[in-house]
Amino acid sequence: MDITPITRDDFRAFWPAFQAIVKAQETYAFDPDMDFDTAWRLWCELPQFTFVAKQDGELLGSYYLKPNAAGPGDHICNCGYMVTPQARGKGVARAMCEHSQRVAIKAGYLGMQFNAVVATNEVAIRLWQTLGFEIIGTVPGGYRHRELGLVDTRIMYKRLTKA
Amino acid sequence: MDITPITRDDFRAFWPAFQAIVKAQETYAFDPDMDFDTAWRLWCELPQFTFVAKQDGELLGSYYLKPNAAGPGDHICNCGYMVTPQARGKGVARAMCEHSQRVAIKAGYLGMQFNAVVATNEVAIRLWQTLGFEIIGTVPGGYRHRELGLVDTRIMYKRLTKA
Repeated sequence: MDITPITRDDFRAFWPAFQAIVKAQETYAFDPDMDFDTAWRLWCELPQFTFVAKQDGELLGSYYLKPNAAGPGDHICNCGYMVTPQARGKGVARAMCEHSQRVAIKAGYLGMQFNAVVATNEVAIRLWQTLGFEIIGTVPGGYRHRELGLVDTRIMYKRLTKA
Repeated sequence: MDITPITRDDFRAFWPAFQAIVKAQETYAFDPDMDFDTAWRLWCELPQFTFVAKQDGELLGSYYLKPNAAGPGDHICNCGYMVTPQARGKGVARAMCEHSQRVAIKAGYLGMQFNAVVATNEVAIRLWQTLGFEIIGTVPGGYRHRELGLVDTRIMYKRLTKA
């Protein structure tokens, strides 16, 4: 698997998956109706880094990394990961998360925080836990799940240290 | 005390206090060196609402209110409150927080979340607790305090219900 900085062509190829994930309203607190240019800005321009994961030319997923706050809070980063529907269960999220931690450490971050992991997304929560993230808080009813209504969100954190 | 929507002239009057608070690096995760126009955008333009508190024409403080996330997370709001150095200890923060809860309920929000209350800011934490907010999580070393170095930040939450 290759993980490389995203290009506009990559994001164009990724867009159907991005749209499907956002429209599903099961995992991301993004406007489900956002258009391509808004998504490009949000996912690829505003963050500090955005990468894509590919194998044999096939796009498997993408992630962004950005400071989670400004000024005296900018030593903790935040990431978002998306895996295309076809690439689920192949360790893509794990590979991207491990990659993002290396990128973050190199960029000088001291910790990584996920602000709103939807509690019903148990696969993700378990994966982040096996990668060393801890649940540090829960927002009651923090997410309006399309099928389930209001569900809790978990705040997860990992201190980053050089290997 | 009057609490009214902010004008550009209000923010100009508030700017010395805003700058002092941000430069102190004790409470806000904002760039301490931001200029007036950036601060205006951040505090007054990007949020959904921004108010000022005044008494006899004197500016006592200001607060913003905005959704804490987008799409399926936009039913929880986030606020930031600042009180001018001269107006401390007069109940201005309490008055603004109570006002913001009424504004939030009217706008349809179901909860209010503070993402990073600096743990050493005990006066603020106690005040939010007396106003019904709970600590729902702690980010270890989430803030680089100018005097104290890395200190924890508290995530606080209150469910909003009509009186």
